[in-house]
Amino acid sequence: MTCTLFELRAADGRAFSPFCWRARMALAHKGVEPALRAVRFCDIADIGHGATTVPVLLDEDAVVRDSWDIAIHLDQRWPDRPPLLPTEGDRRMAQFVHQWTVTQLHLPIFKIIAADIWDALDAQDQPYFRASREKRLNATLESVRNVQAGNLAQLRANLAPLRGVFSTQAFLGGAQPLYADYIVFGALQWARVVGQVKLLESEDAVGQWFERCLDLHEGLGRREPAGV
Amino acid sequence: MTCTLFELRAADGRAFSPFCWRARMALAHKGVEPALRAVRFCDIADIGHGATTVPVLLDEDAVVRDSWDIAIHLDQRWPDRPPLLPTEGDRRMAQFVHQWTVTQLHLPIFKIIAADIWDALDAQDQPYFRASREKRLNATLESVRNVQAGNLAQLRANLAPLRGVFSTQAFLGGAQPLYADYIVFGALQWARVVGQVKLLESEDAVGQWFERCLDLHEGLGRREPAGV
Repeated sequence: MTCTLFELRAADGRAFSPFCWRARMALAHKGVEPALRAVRFCDIADIGHGATTVPVLLDEDAVVRDSWDIAIHLDQRWPDRPPLLPTEGDRRMAQFVHQWTVTQLHLPIFKIIAADIWDALDAQDQPYFRASREKRLNATLESVRNVQAGNLAQLRANLAPLRGVFSTQAFLGGAQPLYADYIVFGALQWARVVGQVKLLESEDAVGQWFERCLDLHEGLGRREPAGV
Repeated sequence: MTCTLFELRAADGRAFSPFCWRARMALAHKGVEPALRAVRFCDIADIGHGATTVPVLLDEDAVVRDSWDIAIHLDQRWPDRPPLLPTEGDRRMAQFVHQWTVTQLHLPIFKIIAADIWDALDAQDQPYFRASREKRLNATLESVRNVQAGNLAQLRANLAPLRGVFSTQAFLGGAQPLYADYIVFGALQWARVVGQVKLLESEDAVGQWFERCLDLHEGLGRREPAGV
């Protein structure tokens, strides 16, 4: 019953990709311990199976190429283990939380840590990363690092909905985490592992939720060394 | 089986409160036609039953004083009619969408339409509204009207998660609306009824979803005259 997860790594071996962290947490939630295969951006095509992004999960005959599909796959494959998406409503919620995360969190976080990611990448990945991301940002990595304060303020403002939720419950899933938690967790873990900036004040309810997430599954997230 | 809904009205009788629209749409979703009782801000205490805000629903012996509690009440009272919150996951989703709506939509919308609301209110409501809202805004109603363009840009940026959702489905509820749709609908209906600014471009997927919502329940939302 071994399965294999291909995930992105920095030059020193740290796992930092937000989408790969969704998959890592989802596997741990189901009690599945995958064999981990590190890849760099420049290795992704070598995974085969038509992969153009990571994570990729190989599970017996199944090839699952997207973090959302991995969550769906795991609930189908292990229906008797704790569900990631227990109801149709949780699927609807996870889709909304995904859209919120990629538009309202990933973008300001990426601007904050883009130059830090470049610093952390293997030398073979750096030219691709710089060229593709500077085109996307329409700016140099160093110039967005120089306007970090504004992006940090924007990120903290965008996190406001979570503060309301965490005033009455421990996780987006309620008393226990569900896949929606791992979607948001991936974004903040990306910044924790590879970024050089502290995103959240320690008294922030979002920071306290993130600490709870780092403790989950025997401290899986916390075992990955932090950038700062 | 008549029930009574107390809702806020402008001087000319138009219903504009975002929370009251949540209740109106929720009642229509369940096929319940309430007796409507118009109140002004200055009348709310006269409702009795400890009411300090609207909507308030009187339904046989039940007094339900909050739009969220009204949704829960309606699903319990009419379990055989179409559910507003069919699963526990939909409750979790609606709570997150509520927090997102009040922090990311209501605030920029309120700044855009605050002076328009004052214009529309009954003369007896205007002094209370101006004093309480100018204190909250820490600015005059007229001065926030003068910086409308920035708040409009902020609102449109904050709506980005919905554009992703509506690229693959018609409503937050999927093929059909659920209570989460009515939460967001209330915010945009508030601006439609009482505001003097067009919030959304007609090619915006959010605007197209809002038009679908205006058509629901025999055009309930659309029958309320628009400000522009």
